Amino acid sequence: MGVLVDVFLILVYIIYTAKAGEAKDLKWEVEYKRWSPDGKESVVIAINGKFPGPTIRARAGDTINVELTNKLPTEGVVIHWHGITQKGTPWADGTASISQCPINPGESFVYTFKVDKAGTFFYHGHYGMQRSSGLYGMLIVDVAEEQTEKFTYNDEFHILLSDWWHKGAHEQEVDLSSKPMRWIGEPQSLLINGRGQFDCSLAATSSSESAVPCDDLEGGEQYAPHILHVVTGKTYRLRIASSTALASLNFSIGNHKLTVVEADGNYVEPFTVDNIDIYSGESYSVLFTADQDATQNYWISVSVRGREPKTPQGLTFLTYQPTSEKQLPPSAAPPVAPAWNDYVSSKAFSNKILAAADSPPPPTNSDRRIVLLNTQNTMDGFTKWAINGISLSLPTTPYLGAIKYKLMDAYDHTPPPDHYTPDDYDIMKPPPNPNTRSGNGIYELEFESTVDVILQNANTNSVEVSEIHPWHLHGHDFWVLGYGEGKFTDKDAAGFNLKNPPLRNTAVIFPYGWTALRFRADNPGVWAFHCHIEPHLHLGMGVVFAEGGDRLGNIPNEALTCGLTAKYLMNKETAT
Amino acid sequence: MGVLVDVFLILVYIIYTAKAGEAKDLKWEVEYKRWSPDGKESVVIAINGKFPGPTIRARAGDTINVELTNKLPTEGVVIHWHGITQKGTPWADGTASISQCPINPGESFVYTFKVDKAGTFFYHGHYGMQRSSGLYGMLIVDVAEEQTEKFTYNDEFHILLSDWWHKGAHEQEVDLSSKPMRWIGEPQSLLINGRGQFDCSLAATSSSESAVPCDDLEGGEQYAPHILHVVTGKTYRLRIASSTALASLNFSIGNHKLTVVEADGNYVEPFTVDNIDIYSGESYSVLFTADQDATQNYWISVSVRGREPKTPQGLTFLTYQPTSEKQLPPSAAPPVAPAWNDYVSSKAFSNKILAAADSPPPPTNSDRRIVLLNTQNTMDGFTKWAINGISLSLPTTPYLGAIKYKLMDAYDHTPPPDHYTPDDYDIMKPPPNPNTRSGNGIYELEFESTVDVILQNANTNSVEVSEIHPWHLHGHDFWVLGYGEGKFTDKDAAGFNLKNPPLRNTAVIFPYGWTALRFRADNPGVWAFHCHIEPHLHLGMGVVFAEGGDRLGNIPNEALTCGLTAKYLMNKETAT
Repeated sequence: MGVLVDVFLILVYIIYTAKAGEAKDLKWEVEYKRWSPDGKESVVIAINGKFPGPTIRARAGDTINVELTNKLPTEGVVIHWHGITQKGTPWADGTASISQCPINPGESFVYTFKVDKAGTFFYHGHYGMQRSSGLYGMLIVDVAEEQTEKFTYNDEFHILLSDWWHKGAHEQEVDLSSKPMRWIGEPQSLLINGRGQFDCSLAATSSSESAVPCDDLEGGEQYAPHILHVVTGKTYRLRIASSTALASLNFSIGNHKLTVVEADGNYVEPFTVDNIDIYSGESYSVLFTADQDATQNYWISVSVRGREPKTPQGLTFLTYQPTSEKQLPPSAAPPVAPAWNDYVSSKAFSNKILAAADSPPPPTNSDRRIVLLNTQNTMDGFTKWAINGISLSLPTTPYLGAIKYKLMDAYDHTPPPDHYTPDDYDIMKPPPNPNTRSGNGIYELEFESTVDVILQNANTNSVEVSEIHPWHLHGHDFWVLGYGEGKFTDKDAAGFNLKNPPLRNTAVIFPYGWTALRFRADNPGVWAFHCHIEPHLHLGMGVVFAEGGDRLGNIPNEALTCGLTAKYLMNKETAT
Repeated sequence: MGVLVDVFLILVYIIYTAKAGEAKDLKWEVEYKRWSPDGKESVVIAINGKFPGPTIRARAGDTINVELTNKLPTEGVVIHWHGITQKGTPWADGTASISQCPINPGESFVYTFKVDKAGTFFYHGHYGMQRSSGLYGMLIVDVAEEQTEKFTYNDEFHILLSDWWHKGAHEQEVDLSSKPMRWIGEPQSLLINGRGQFDCSLAATSSSESAVPCDDLEGGEQYAPHILHVVTGKTYRLRIASSTALASLNFSIGNHKLTVVEADGNYVEPFTVDNIDIYSGESYSVLFTADQDATQNYWISVSVRGREPKTPQGLTFLTYQPTSEKQLPPSAAPPVAPAWNDYVSSKAFSNKILAAADSPPPPTNSDRRIVLLNTQNTMDGFTKWAINGISLSLPTTPYLGAIKYKLMDAYDHTPPPDHYTPDDYDIMKPPPNPNTRSGNGIYELEFESTVDVILQNANTNSVEVSEIHPWHLHGHDFWVLGYGEGKFTDKDAAGFNLKNPPLRNTAVIFPYGWTALRFRADNPGVWAFHCHIEPHLHLGMGVVFAEGGDRLGNIPNEALTCGLTAKYLMNKETAT
């Protein structure tokens, strides 16, 4: 296979100046570019000519300024800073139709936000299906200079996971919006730091159909794997984030145990496992020690979970220094992930994630409980996902500007319901009436109230099918109070974990189950809460929360050059 | 082949209410849609669910109001009304970066313009390469109610010609903008009213490689040919327009003579030919009489001219009523077009086009002569086309708004040169220094002055190659004063045809030749003048004219929600 690309090389792209509370000024150009993420030439959205985009590295307390110039020929663009709460800068959340108007082609927009907490984050497109075109990268926040981490390690790596289709995101979008819907299918490849192998496998012993060995890889290819180089006896922090469009993943390193220490930028009580599940929108830090036979190499593997996998395992490997000439894939077979539908193992993993000892505890009580039923539906022959009977259809005017300037026509002011109807909805069966409607009403949350959200899963339109959905909340972390089977009832609240629930920004609902979340509505702004599966969001699987509408602060006009806000701001001289 | 789609059916889509000086209110939704223009499934930009878009039909003097709603997921859109001069409504010309900001996704924009002259026109996208995605349709203006045409006919048909690639326009755009450029290649199909046949041929005797007969066509297919039904003895007006992205075409009807009576909405002195050349951006009306053996069917054929053809002939056919069951393709071989590089025949055809007897004569003298050298160049490794050494790179802020509000930073105020340098540039050879620069300066024309433009062709970057370029002027018709070989010199002006030069909005330059045009700068606005080959324009082959900047009239704010005009209009309350 020759010399392969070294994961250390990606440090070249890291923008890292290490003083606390500093401003980091970045200039990014976003453009389409030919790229071969998995050996088959495709088109990606590149940032500064690279895919994935550059890793942002900062310290807690820093202010990030990204001057984003849109070099796409005809498309607007925004970037969401996933996991950053945007306190005081709700207009910088990077969600089209919610926090801002898309940045027009040829124009620049400056995102300014503070990274107030150390952790492993990432960023990605949040307009149309541009995330599926590869608009993503990592965002790593180190502890402030005077602070130390709760755990020790000698060095670190980061891995951004994604999935890749050979059909471009534009066509995927057309197909999803077709009547009848054409499903995008399973991804062709899983990418590790933007690199996968479609036509060949790193593993000679691979059980996948594309088992032709990647013999001719020389290391310079865009799809050559990143190899992790370790030194015997050292402990490494591996930061892992998943920006997949669809796939839920299981991650492991052959022969090496993983100790989970961080989830979504929050410390968790350390626990050690052979492999971790990671859903789209999630991030983890795991520690591992290079304590194995240094003459061997070891697989790093990602496999699909929760959907019957039709995608080859994503692979790279770990090699012990000195590297000499032994940079070959391990001769052993890659690790075998739990069966795709082994939800017992998935739930066991999720339940192991608990807050670290001195984490902020949740409020004991909540002021409001919103129960959100997730259903697959149809609307005039189109396939949709709906929440409490409404499929989210985002408005043209961003909510944030509409609320700021009280533009009543910008969206439907009837809030969506806090509970689904009928009460006796049978979550074990396809919807009796599959028809839904679309809407853009929002949940207005009382400022500084405590809100519980119960995500209630259900059967899809097909009998005996219920899928995994990782839900991501913007602007907040939430406490995951618990997971349950079947239909949530008020009695289940008695079982909420109020002692050490983990803080997260993304939480999964398992098939036919529920997940209970609690958060404080303490961040003035308008915040998306949605399934992080790109086609599901595209088909309406989300809701919008708004809070502190009278405390939104200044919004740059540049964020509001569309819809009714543009009209209002352009005409206000003559407005009465 | 079964029963094929009847060209009369397209009348269903025609919006036609026949009172003079009326307002025609149209509501259009623009969206991506799966479509099979040539039998291979692709994605098109559809209007109201149809490809090509609906035919607009009006009378001279009518006002057209098109409320265009952009249903593209992430792209802006504009539509240019090709051949309509937009007197008094320069903001409605539908050119991104020139007359308006792109209409944002989800938003509506109302184009309002008067069709002041009868003729055969069309409309198309004018942003990025959206025309190549199929955003086009016909626009037919009948004479005002009290008027009669200069010629008589019993009925009419219209045919919109285009070319089609299986690679989508987004990818084409990426490839053209790549370093090194990847050329899009020749089209896979030629379309007649949006219908072509890629995998099969209507002609059993076709000489093309894809000569499998289209036996299984049933008529309902999106790519089934439109058949023209005629009645013996009747005379028909056939309106033909070409919206091709690349291909120059030759059009003929087997056994039937064609009498050319109109070109680009202007009457020409009638002349009769066996076939016509039609370049992208041009339109013609031809008369033909159904005077052949009514028991036979006859080919309608389009073939590529001016580039070595790798695209099968585009075909449909003409059948005499009563149709009975004989709706089969003609058994004879399709007409054979002149050889692709038979420029003698092309020039002979162009030179036959002369103004009808009572057409407005050109001014005897011009106030300014601008000589535009067309060269293929490179810029930092990218391929470009340049005019007098500058490759047009459109600004983010539309010129029209920038001029209206005197926003000096919106574009380069150094005008491009009126003449190329050096004087002794050898047009017969590749450029000695192929490097060019990009720019967005414009030609400011004195209002109501008479301007001559000499389009000077040259050798491309490859030895012994010079291509055809059809240049289209917005906002005006021009008189075509003549075509010449080699390098234009001042002496050539003595040979200008000032007696009966045809009025056109599009004129071709032949390889290694020049074309002389004259027009009156009498239309306040900012007007693109460019090669109508989509990839050539994309690579910079155009210039911009501005005139009457102090007479621009009102521009709707909705046309200016981008760049510096948005900034200016949003902030003007606080501006000094």
